[in-house]
Amino acid sequence: MKWTSTEMAARVLAGDRLALARLLTLIENEDPHGLEALSILYPQSGNAHIIGITGAPGTGKSTLVNRLARLLRDGSAEAPDGVRVAVVAVDPSSPFSGGAILGDRIRMRDLAGDPGLFIRSMASRGALGGLARTTAGVVEALDAAGYQCILIETVGAGQAEVEIARLAHTTVVVDAPGRGDDVQAIKAGILEIADILVVNKFDLPSAENTLMALKAAMSMANYEEGEEQPWQVPVLPAVATRGEGIDALAESIAAHRRYLERSGELQSRDRARVTARLQELLRERLERDFLDRLPDGRYEAMIEEVLARKRSPTEAVAELLQAFAA
Amino acid sequence: MKWTSTEMAARVLAGDRLALARLLTLIENEDPHGLEALSILYPQSGNAHIIGITGAPGTGKSTLVNRLARLLRDGSAEAPDGVRVAVVAVDPSSPFSGGAILGDRIRMRDLAGDPGLFIRSMASRGALGGLARTTAGVVEALDAAGYQCILIETVGAGQAEVEIARLAHTTVVVDAPGRGDDVQAIKAGILEIADILVVNKFDLPSAENTLMALKAAMSMANYEEGEEQPWQVPVLPAVATRGEGIDALAESIAAHRRYLERSGELQSRDRARVTARLQELLRERLERDFLDRLPDGRYEAMIEEVLARKRSPTEAVAELLQAFAA
Repeated sequence: MKWTSTEMAARVLAGDRLALARLLTLIENEDPHGLEALSILYPQSGNAHIIGITGAPGTGKSTLVNRLARLLRDGSAEAPDGVRVAVVAVDPSSPFSGGAILGDRIRMRDLAGDPGLFIRSMASRGALGGLARTTAGVVEALDAAGYQCILIETVGAGQAEVEIARLAHTTVVVDAPGRGDDVQAIKAGILEIADILVVNKFDLPSAENTLMALKAAMSMANYEEGEEQPWQVPVLPAVATRGEGIDALAESIAAHRRYLERSGELQSRDRARVTARLQELLRERLERDFLDRLPDGRYEAMIEEVLARKRSPTEAVAELLQAFAA
Repeated sequence: MKWTSTEMAARVLAGDRLALARLLTLIENEDPHGLEALSILYPQSGNAHIIGITGAPGTGKSTLVNRLARLLRDGSAEAPDGVRVAVVAVDPSSPFSGGAILGDRIRMRDLAGDPGLFIRSMASRGALGGLARTTAGVVEALDAAGYQCILIETVGAGQAEVEIARLAHTTVVVDAPGRGDDVQAIKAGILEIADILVVNKFDLPSAENTLMALKAAMSMANYEEGEEQPWQVPVLPAVATRGEGIDALAESIAAHRRYLERSGELQSRDRARVTARLQELLRERLERDFLDRLPDGRYEAMIEEVLARKRSPTEAVAELLQAFAA
């Protein structure tokens, strides 16, 4: 059975999970049909709190996401009745295999069967920027479908992950003790994207040291800025496997949301996200349209000339543009 | 004093280090003058062995690069007279600060004063893909300037790093014991880009375990491919701080080079690199040319309409393209 874009959009708005799953697949494949349905849905979006959760492998991030999703569903002090939650798990991006290990996702299964919860795994398609682009579309669709909290789980702090973090209103960075690279995390820039820091596995030895080091690093970072920080990044302990610290995390996330609204930063983050989204879509369309205009084999022939060093890459591109830019 | 592109290219070919340093800055800034000089130099490139060295923070990668550069300069069993070496250090990429901690570079100072050695630090400029683009240009210039080995040092395995690794003929991945994420490294896809694996800090406890785990992972990875692997990724122990294992690494790098030449893979890696390079330049030029054609404020107005949800991102981009694609 094939739905029109309009039918699909209507079904998604009516809460049809199968239609939503199908739409997300079309968006991931950048299918024009799916993008059309997404355009129809787009005016309904803009209500979700988008929360990015990132951290290196081994920090217990997936368990934390699992617990947090459960808590948000069941209701917390902030939202006693619970909210509708979507989890977008961006699997380890391997541009070479497109591979993903599903172990972490299997642990998610105890959340299944709840109609107010939607879980989606994204796989890297190998294109630089492609993952961020399709994740943005998936988040827009989930937002329009009425999920009030969207948790985006990513690994590490590579540029693609940072791009994905930019989709979020609130970014939670998860660390764990004894990884021997707490100070290195500062170096890798991961702390700079954090609105909230969690030291998970807080039952491990030296957990206190990690907490203190991160607190010191954060206050130093703030101090160096030379201006008053309206939002102090909290550093929270947690033992996700035992469900400890999840309440405090949920409270902190809600407090950050209130801060964003109060300060006007919610709007500026939304603006930054939309700006990045348009740029990414524009780049992709421009490239595709241009390559479609090239005669068969012209591009490949130019690659050979550059390989033979008859032309430099810059000259080759200039020549192609001069000949074929419409 | 300002040189023409031709003068600058001539000086670089004559071995003028100041001219080379200046050219690299122009390339980093994507200055047309610099790109012109690079185009003049380009036919002289294609002789260097480009070696990527990557690994997580804390693995002692910089020390290893330092030692390797020293050995390649001084001469090894492979090249008794030593070769000219360039080191391109791609600092931790923080798209938010553009910041780079220079500690690792300071350790490099004991290599200074050697005319056959050139060291360059690159800083992230925040643009997704931008760093890979300018690094490619820098490597081309160093290649044309006669550096026979170019070591590109990157951190981690984010997409940008993987893009940079694609520049290399030979990719060395550095790990260290006790980081608690050896198996996680497989998950993050970092092993898939390795031609050579080094377990540095081999004097630490549990180093043997790390070595065995990585060897097992590599042979499993090969087995899963279902085909005979013409190149068996070696897993080498090293203690870079004491200079141990560096000879074996240099030998392994030379062996990999011979394998690439023998198997024809050198050509296919060069082709992949040139293809990625042209695509990246093309994207960048197409975007710039298009934005130049837009009337002032038109793009910003469209961002507001998307923010107000009057148009979806896809519709906005389609509309701009229809109105202003030349």
